[in-house]
Amino acid sequence: MTSSPPPFRVGLLGHGTVGAAFEELLASQADAIGKKVGLRPQISGVLTRSRGSFEDVLDRSDLVVELIGGTDPALDYALQSLRAGRHLVTANKQLLSQHGEALFDAAGQSGAQLRFEAAVAGVVPVIRVIGETLAGAHIERVHGIVNGTTNFILTAMARTGASYEDALGEAQELGYAEADPTEDVTGKDAAAKMAILARLAFGAPVHLEEVPYEGIESITAEDIAYAKELGLSLKLIGSAERRDDGLWVQVYPAFLYAGHPLAAVNGSFNAVTIESPAITEITLSGPGAGGMQTASAVLGDVVSAMIPPSFNPPPAVPQPLVTDVESAFYLHVEVADRPGVLAQVAEILGLQGVSIKSVVQKGIGEDARLAMVMHPVLESRFRAAVDLIGRLDFVRSTPRVIRVIEEVFE
Amino acid sequence: MTSSPPPFRVGLLGHGTVGAAFEELLASQADAIGKKVGLRPQISGVLTRSRGSFEDVLDRSDLVVELIGGTDPALDYALQSLRAGRHLVTANKQLLSQHGEALFDAAGQSGAQLRFEAAVAGVVPVIRVIGETLAGAHIERVHGIVNGTTNFILTAMARTGASYEDALGEAQELGYAEADPTEDVTGKDAAAKMAILARLAFGAPVHLEEVPYEGIESITAEDIAYAKELGLSLKLIGSAERRDDGLWVQVYPAFLYAGHPLAAVNGSFNAVTIESPAITEITLSGPGAGGMQTASAVLGDVVSAMIPPSFNPPPAVPQPLVTDVESAFYLHVEVADRPGVLAQVAEILGLQGVSIKSVVQKGIGEDARLAMVMHPVLESRFRAAVDLIGRLDFVRSTPRVIRVIEEVFE
Repeated sequence: MTSSPPPFRVGLLGHGTVGAAFEELLASQADAIGKKVGLRPQISGVLTRSRGSFEDVLDRSDLVVELIGGTDPALDYALQSLRAGRHLVTANKQLLSQHGEALFDAAGQSGAQLRFEAAVAGVVPVIRVIGETLAGAHIERVHGIVNGTTNFILTAMARTGASYEDALGEAQELGYAEADPTEDVTGKDAAAKMAILARLAFGAPVHLEEVPYEGIESITAEDIAYAKELGLSLKLIGSAERRDDGLWVQVYPAFLYAGHPLAAVNGSFNAVTIESPAITEITLSGPGAGGMQTASAVLGDVVSAMIPPSFNPPPAVPQPLVTDVESAFYLHVEVADRPGVLAQVAEILGLQGVSIKSVVQKGIGEDARLAMVMHPVLESRFRAAVDLIGRLDFVRSTPRVIRVIEEVFE
Repeated sequence: MTSSPPPFRVGLLGHGTVGAAFEELLASQADAIGKKVGLRPQISGVLTRSRGSFEDVLDRSDLVVELIGGTDPALDYALQSLRAGRHLVTANKQLLSQHGEALFDAAGQSGAQLRFEAAVAGVVPVIRVIGETLAGAHIERVHGIVNGTTNFILTAMARTGASYEDALGEAQELGYAEADPTEDVTGKDAAAKMAILARLAFGAPVHLEEVPYEGIESITAEDIAYAKELGLSLKLIGSAERRDDGLWVQVYPAFLYAGHPLAAVNGSFNAVTIESPAITEITLSGPGAGGMQTASAVLGDVVSAMIPPSFNPPPAVPQPLVTDVESAFYLHVEVADRPGVLAQVAEILGLQGVSIKSVVQKGIGEDARLAMVMHPVLESRFRAAVDLIGRLDFVRSTPRVIRVIEEVFE
């Protein structure tokens, strides 16, 4: 007996990179979502510049996804959708930061849901965490790195000593910056996102025009090099804070000390820290916007709007648990300090197919110690080699083995 | 006209540190929650070892909070609550990792909600993000630092070169480790949390007994010191991954390279990275369990269970935006290399109440450059000083000013 779940009709406004990625992702996930929530989402109409009419799309949808961008005609369509009781999902930060109150009002009056996770920090669920997880908390501050383009450029400058212009050129070549990067590099894009976060976190209307912003165009390779001497690294930071006399919402380049959690956020990644007395702080990080990530965040909002998620997960399906897997390892062993010792250790490792990535050898009196890191290898093979090494007559200590996690994210 | 919202009855099982903190937090937030969701939560019954009966608490509640810990009698009470159609909120990782399927089944049959954000990573919303935000995503891997005690100990060892025993003693003195730290330092606590995360992420039943774990008791100060030479730092890592032939779920000490996002997670903080093709990865971090944080996570679950959150925020209340606030600053200026130059710059700063935190001076031919970091100061005062400095006759370049973010989190 098969009964397919009833359809949930999604109207799509705009069909650029994100729109196309969303349509594809929705099609691939529709069956799985149908099983989970009891309704099967499907695109019921598409409006592009050259085809479709907004009224038709609205008529035939339970939810409207707005991916046109800008405010005209996106604002008009968004308000009409919400007033007609359609849930609205959008990735449009301009819309929210300039016309948020009108949209929230329209949603509040009709009871439709307005969701916009994709508008800030791509797939990083900062909107959901502020709006739902921390719905009861008193938030003191939200700050972070909310523009991937500028973080990519600053990371490249720090790593290679490149000039701003060269790093921007690299970002453009690799698709991390637009041909016209103005919105990103001036800090305006980040300012729009901070306006949205401030509105959510503090419940006060904050308009993009009220947020002072400064970008990274005048940062020089020397700024970054000099500051290294002081242990500092440079990021474009957005801050939204409660102060005694009001709110402080601003975007500015800032140096961070090495121990700061945001100092380790590199490449095109975004990260946002939310501070509240009861929770201390939560930091969320992940890739900034990209077509696929944005589409994924939009789909998450669509699923959330379809049905209040029952938290109880579906029944579990058993899967085998494995234990012997590939991993990199660190090996430390004390040995007699005499010729050929490293060669013998290396030979045993080689016979087991273990490849050495780096090694430090140091004398300690008559003995020496070897500290080595291996390339990834099946654990059983590495353990077999260590077992043999432990029996060598020149080995003075039980070999110590610790796993190494290799990936460096940027 | 005032109408107080109808009550939502919360039965509380267990009244230790977390239970008492939860009761207090609930009382302080009840009015605000009532306004937001239309029901006012209140404690309708408490069961402790010495007073109350479970049947009474159950009868008089809409939702049961289980904070007894362990599995006996917590499992029996939890199952009875769910079977009676009461939502259940628990912080009990033993319960979930050993009897998860029985609990999920009971919840699924009665339609009650089972929520357990506080069982893993304290207030860091990893359960919600995996279970709701990423409900539609194919998760490949979940890994991270899920035990604050061991991370505190490893951080102390790395910072001071202390032995494991001394660092454990410090953790116990400061309340970061229990008098009997066995569950934490052996990795068993982390293994229970990874079993829960694996169940949620992969939809497969994973029982605590199936998760191999290794702790940090045998880690030496030398391990950490030697590895520093290789650019590595040590963390206790929990991994849950899909592999070709099944799932790999394990807890083990591991070295991380400096660029790894988890390498910067210090002190008692927890952090979890979730990887999925559509989203690349999301990392969530924040304080591990503490009485107040756990109580806050429990209350978040209670509010979520009370009513499916309408995402539309309440109407905005205007608040003033301020722009001139205290902040630390970096100042770079090129000057003629002659005696008294630094003194004059310092004097101007001092007259404006700007205090210098650190300074680097370097000669460049006939000129020198000054790179300085200030202690926090009102921006307008600092800008006034910089304006004066820029007019000094020995100054060779326009002074460069960049904000500095000071906090170092541990």
